[in-house]
Amino acid sequence: MRFLIKISYDGKNYSGFQIQPNKTTIQEVLEKKLSEVLKDNVKITASGRTDAGVSALGQICHFDYPYDIDIARVRSYINHLLPDDIRVLEMDKVGDDFNARYSANSKQYDYWFYIGEKVPVYEKIAVNIGYKLDIDSMNKACEYLIGEHDFTSFCASNTEVKDKIRHILRAEIVKLDDNLFKFSIVGNGFLYNMVRIIMGTLIEVGRHKILPIDIKNIILAKDRNKAGKTAPSKGLYLKKVIY
Amino acid sequence: MRFLIKISYDGKNYSGFQIQPNKTTIQEVLEKKLSEVLKDNVKITASGRTDAGVSALGQICHFDYPYDIDIARVRSYINHLLPDDIRVLEMDKVGDDFNARYSANSKQYDYWFYIGEKVPVYEKIAVNIGYKLDIDSMNKACEYLIGEHDFTSFCASNTEVKDKIRHILRAEIVKLDDNLFKFSIVGNGFLYNMVRIIMGTLIEVGRHKILPIDIKNIILAKDRNKAGKTAPSKGLYLKKVIY
Repeated sequence: MRFLIKISYDGKNYSGFQIQPNKTTIQEVLEKKLSEVLKDNVKITASGRTDAGVSALGQICHFDYPYDIDIARVRSYINHLLPDDIRVLEMDKVGDDFNARYSANSKQYDYWFYIGEKVPVYEKIAVNIGYKLDIDSMNKACEYLIGEHDFTSFCASNTEVKDKIRHILRAEIVKLDDNLFKFSIVGNGFLYNMVRIIMGTLIEVGRHKILPIDIKNIILAKDRNKAGKTAPSKGLYLKKVIY
Repeated sequence: MRFLIKISYDGKNYSGFQIQPNKTTIQEVLEKKLSEVLKDNVKITASGRTDAGVSALGQICHFDYPYDIDIARVRSYINHLLPDDIRVLEMDKVGDDFNARYSANSKQYDYWFYIGEKVPVYEKIAVNIGYKLDIDSMNKACEYLIGEHDFTSFCASNTEVKDKIRHILRAEIVKLDDNLFKFSIVGNGFLYNMVRIIMGTLIEVGRHKILPIDIKNIILAKDRNKAGKTAPSKGLYLKKVIY
């Protein structure tokens, strides 16, 4: 039988999602607790990995287990065993044809940032940008991201992935509070560091170092060096996975 | 000479703003660092105290000092000495007639809360409400708060203040993210625990335990027992002081 779990985690104290030797990862902690509760060697498959320091508001995983589960009870027990920075929000029985990774249609990432002086409360959840930013220009720049493009320029150069064409369905910056903003991007997939490099490049637009239309030219160049810096992992959230 | 400072703090690790014996408070830490930098015994006056656990995004204080100050340099030096959870955002020279407390026209408080299962990232900045909430009804209830009323019902019963009439200029709940909301309230002044008791009562409205119009009846009753519970200090932020 196959089960889906929707999880949320604060990535601050983890070396990313995926299991790695000698490092504490979300997957490792979650598999350990699931195995403990279900008295079996449980392996989970996520919609995709998240990097060190990246958090999730709605990561989706699946796992197989030979017996039926009292879902509410198991979920509550796992949450009891898990550290406070990882929570199982939902658990459901799904068909064998569901695969958390391959069935995913699209994903939404959010990047939280704030402008101006360091604000202790915002520091907990967002990245401080110490410059004035022209949010309107940044939103104009977002429009050039939408559609199907080769995102080589927005991909860490040390990646092994061959096909760098991705389809971006939505990209926009929304104001949350006076100086606090959220950049939301929805796409059918994301390359290594893609959202963080896009964010770093949008900051260049916001600082008037480049123009909104330069995003188009950077995409066409297929050259990582043309894009901006990789923004810090701290502000990045895997918001949801759409099936 | 009189100087204004705009400060921001995370109240989590402090016993509130105001100096108390044998407790760590924002005022104590701030006065100590200001005195160290300015080599004088500096006393600050805030727009008002905030309770234990309450944070500020824009608290305003003033202090007097016999000499002129290199504002940018002093501010940077104080921030260097202060712990990360207290920041001086702005510093300005003001006239002798300015008083951070008595010159304030109104204040805005925000209360951050989120609905549903515990989400580690939201836990850092907002209070979890483990029930479904009807936000539309809560916003209808907010309308009954606006205007000049005797807020005895929304004041901690152990307060010494005689005049409990306050003028509320704005009160509304705004959605920040899927399940994350902010209750904003602007008034010419607030009684002890007033925002937290209002929040606790709005939650009763959101749970359909009481009707929006019951807010009107609770105000008229002038009885603390008619209102809801005092919501936790964690989600409360002194957002800004308006002069």
